[in-house]
Amino acid sequence: MSESSVVSNLMAVIAERKARPPADRSYVVSLLQAGDPKILGKIAEEAAEVVAAAAEPGDGGRDHLVREAADLIFHALVLLGRHDVPWPAVEAELGRRFGISGIVEKESRSSQS
Amino acid sequence: MSESSVVSNLMAVIAERKARPPADRSYVVSLLQAGDPKILGKIAEEAAEVVAAAAEPGDGGRDHLVREAADLIFHALVLLGRHDVPWPAVEAELGRRFGISGIVEKESRSSQS
Amino acid sequence: MSESSVVSNLMAVIAERKARPPADRSYVVSLLQAGDPKILGKIAEEAAEVVAAAAEPGDGGRDHLVREAADLIFHALVLLGRHDVPWPAVEAELGRRFGISGIVEKESRSSQS
Amino acid sequence: MSESSVVSNLMAVIAERKARPPADRSYVVSLLQAGDPKILGKIAEEAAEVVAAAAEPGDGGRDHLVREAADLIFHALVLLGRHDVPWPAVEAELGRRFGISGIVEKESRSSQS
Repeated sequence: MSESSVVSNLMAVIAERKARPPADRSYVVSLLQAGDPKILGKIAEEAAEVVAAAAEPGDGGRDHLVREAADLIFHALVLLGRHDVPWPAVEAELGRRFGISGIVEKESRSSQS
Repeated sequence: MSESSVVSNLMAVIAERKARPPADRSYVVSLLQAGDPKILGKIAEEAAEVVAAAAEPGDGGRDHLVREAADLIFHALVLLGRHDVPWPAVEAELGRRFGISGIVEKESRSSQS
Repeated sequence: MSESSVVSNLMAVIAERKARPPADRSYVVSLLQAGDPKILGKIAEEAAEVVAAAAEPGDGGRDHLVREAADLIFHALVLLGRHDVPWPAVEAELGRRFGISGIVEKESRSSQS
Repeated sequence: MSESSVVSNLMAVIAERKARPPADRSYVVSLLQAGDPKILGKIAEEAAEVVAAAAEPGDGGRDHLVREAADLIFHALVLLGRHDVPWPAVEAELGRRFGISGIVEKESRSSQS
């Protein structure tokens, strides 16, 4: 199984918080309730943070870059989760566009390692 | 095998186009060369397209939503690829934050370190 | 007469192109017709260009910065023009918030009400 | 004198708060100190709020739209102020592009009213 399933699992967490918001408002819940413009703004902010972090030198900069990249993906997934976009459908669409199928992907991955 | 590996493989496609841009400029190559502000603008545009598509009724709207969602994720991944952010590191960061580690996922992460 | 009236006049140009699009699609017309997500994406792109230009050294960088700043304001005004937001109302709102009213400005505002 | 001078005056307020931040951090100061990605994110957020408000019916929607438009312009001006972009230079650039000069502008304005 691929490590990519972290994204599927995160989408499940977002869907769960959307369906049953915990009493103590988590950050995911506060975003979902703040609405689309807020989430869109955070996506743009985190994209700009990725760009800024990429300009930092050294290993500290690299760690920062990964954290900002995770922030960007996280907020994009919250937007998708807010609108009940099923992640497998997104992956299928991306796979279709780039001619990436499961089997070929498996082969190409082993050839990369 | 998880369908999520589509993302890993798309990142490999982006890295490949970055390292060896094909003579006939693909869209990925044109984005990578246009630079961060262009990619950031496309991320914001596609996030806004997701919001707009979510408001459309019916199955056509749902298909449109999935395509816009794929556009958003795609452009976010291009930004990450432009800065050589390794996707497994992003997943590890997301997994850490959300306590998503599942046994299989944990294994794949330990094999990365 | 204040040079600031350039903005009022630009808003009039945008409104004119919206009401009567010229046969040869101008950039303003193409933006108005492309829709909100496209314009929003351009706003984010130009904001990122402002940030990038601000990091450039020397007079060339400063000229570039002014051009990108103009691009940002221009696209923001196109979004406002697309939705028929009257510029005097925006100025009145900004003036109210910041307690900016200067005598002359106050007069012009009272003549609007 | 044009009502547009509100923008010039607001730019002066921003420059003043940048040069001499008041002890009680105003919102302008907190934005200036938060940095470019934060301001860029707010610009994108407010642009999305403009789009959302434009879809609201009635006079309440129209008032909301004006407030969101003012938010968008305000945050764009804060980004410019953060980078010491002189507003007259921005206006001169916009005027040049659109062939809007002071005198012509005066005429065209009176013909609009």
